[in-house]
Amino acid sequence: MRLAIDAMGGDYGPEVVVKGAVRAVEQFADLEITLVGNETKINPFLTDRTRINVIHTETQIMGDEEPVRAVRRKKDSSMVLMAQQVKDGKADACISAGNTGALMTSGLFVVGRIRGIDRPALAPTLPTIDGKGFVFLDVGANADAKPEHLLQYAYMGSIYAEKVRGIKNPTVGLLNIGTESKKGNDLTRKTYALLEKSDLNFIGNVEARDLLNSVSDVVVTDGFTGNMVLKSIEGSAISIFKMLKETLLANMKAKMAAALIKNDLGKLKQKMDYSEYGGACLFGLKAPVVKAHGSSDEQAIFHAIRQARDLVLNQVPDKIIAAVSKK
Amino acid sequence: MRLAIDAMGGDYGPEVVVKGAVRAVEQFADLEITLVGNETKINPFLTDRTRINVIHTETQIMGDEEPVRAVRRKKDSSMVLMAQQVKDGKADACISAGNTGALMTSGLFVVGRIRGIDRPALAPTLPTIDGKGFVFLDVGANADAKPEHLLQYAYMGSIYAEKVRGIKNPTVGLLNIGTESKKGNDLTRKTYALLEKSDLNFIGNVEARDLLNSVSDVVVTDGFTGNMVLKSIEGSAISIFKMLKETLLANMKAKMAAALIKNDLGKLKQKMDYSEYGGACLFGLKAPVVKAHGSSDEQAIFHAIRQARDLVLNQVPDKIIAAVSKK
Repeated sequence: MRLAIDAMGGDYGPEVVVKGAVRAVEQFADLEITLVGNETKINPFLTDRTRINVIHTETQIMGDEEPVRAVRRKKDSSMVLMAQQVKDGKADACISAGNTGALMTSGLFVVGRIRGIDRPALAPTLPTIDGKGFVFLDVGANADAKPEHLLQYAYMGSIYAEKVRGIKNPTVGLLNIGTESKKGNDLTRKTYALLEKSDLNFIGNVEARDLLNSVSDVVVTDGFTGNMVLKSIEGSAISIFKMLKETLLANMKAKMAAALIKNDLGKLKQKMDYSEYGGACLFGLKAPVVKAHGSSDEQAIFHAIRQARDLVLNQVPDKIIAAVSKK
Repeated sequence: MRLAIDAMGGDYGPEVVVKGAVRAVEQFADLEITLVGNETKINPFLTDRTRINVIHTETQIMGDEEPVRAVRRKKDSSMVLMAQQVKDGKADACISAGNTGALMTSGLFVVGRIRGIDRPALAPTLPTIDGKGFVFLDVGANADAKPEHLLQYAYMGSIYAEKVRGIKNPTVGLLNIGTESKKGNDLTRKTYALLEKSDLNFIGNVEARDLLNSVSDVVVTDGFTGNMVLKSIEGSAISIFKMLKETLLANMKAKMAAALIKNDLGKLKQKMDYSEYGGACLFGLKAPVVKAHGSSDEQAIFHAIRQARDLVLNQVPDKIIAAVSKK
């Protein structure tokens, strides 16, 4: 299996990507990796070239670029060339920690959409308190979604939960502002009716405040709401840990306490850490495209690579094609 | 000034409501309160009847009742009778910690909407890290909102921030999934254009993850998204404090640390506590209607009463009428 990786994406640049890739080929004997990016910046960290080759380019899409324009103009960027490897059949899947919008655009324009899926969905697996986690989609690929799109998300999320995460007959919940079937807006009411009629293991509406309590294996929502909720959870966690840190540095007694629980708090923070959970999958494309978190470290890149490998091994795109063609 | 209060609403029943009311009349000499509810349950806590009278009823709308049906059928419930006091000109404002949907319905059907406001909005003031707080609306009065509704929310929130919270020329932000003007869904793009043309102090899009960092004095969004974000923040805070508690009880070292920082942590939790910030106002009605949090204690009820008093003193409904009639 060959994976193409954008070596230039992410907040920490080529170093963490290259190191993560080296670790992945050491761990998985079936893996070959193509790193795409600036050789001069990649080579210092490429300590082992076994089953790793590099495609050199000096062009790169930056985090703040307008996605569609960037992908159209920068055809020789590390990200677009990476997607091109998949399109040309030279790679089975691709991974980038770069500009999320540009990666979705590259996925759509270069890798291509599965026939039968109207809109791809961005689907991270989010941590829960009990450590089980859940698949959440869409978190921003498509801001103006229709009920049929959400039904397709439910199928894609369900297949991923079952085939990659190994959950038998995964539960599917519809994110809503109340649990009663009539609750919500026009979109959720119509989606509820579609999900109820489907052969999915639909458990009804789930509320945002229960997401971290493992309320459902898969939770579907439109890209606008999903992105909003994701950033709210993220923002609250960051704010609370920040306040906690200030509290623990405020006085001598607190500092003593901090020293006693430093390790435990580190573990707690890690539990809420997205990097531990690998990347977000972009579902609905002809091949797996994985978005690693922008702030990914070597460990997170390694997890994203493992995730892409699992998606390929379990033939997730083929299973999505089979599911949507049956409907 | 006379306020009508639903004595039966909220998780802790009449005890906290009555005690909060007694404290409020002690504090504010201009205040007269009408408590509506079951006398047998109110009287034991009514230690002081100065400027407090009781309207007796044994009917009550429960938390899980379908709002519209409950308000229509239970015309003699404590909540509907409370709203009726306002309609009949016997009270200047009303407060309930009961069923939010039923209170919105009572507000709309009994108190009545301001001409020129299409949809009322539920607007809590949420805590921020620096303690400043911000007015957030709509958090659930109207799940399918249009751009013009959001513009009206912006005016109402702005008036409240200025007149009641004392913020000069308050900033108004549009909650969105990115800060660029073109970001978001159809609703946010159209609302952005309306806000930009208005005479409000519009600062553009704001992101959910920055809400707790005092990014804007007023933040507007549709009721579906607002409710979602509110519950996400609430859910994350609850989950994190729960995990923190478990961490601090996990072993002897952690328990020692816990003893050292117990007070500091209590203060931190309080900072994130909604009860400290009083109730959510229902804007767009002919008189102030305040929703106290369901889990309100005596202190929170007191704050909600003070808030209703401020709304009346500052003639907020009249100022909203003046603002919408100018447009």
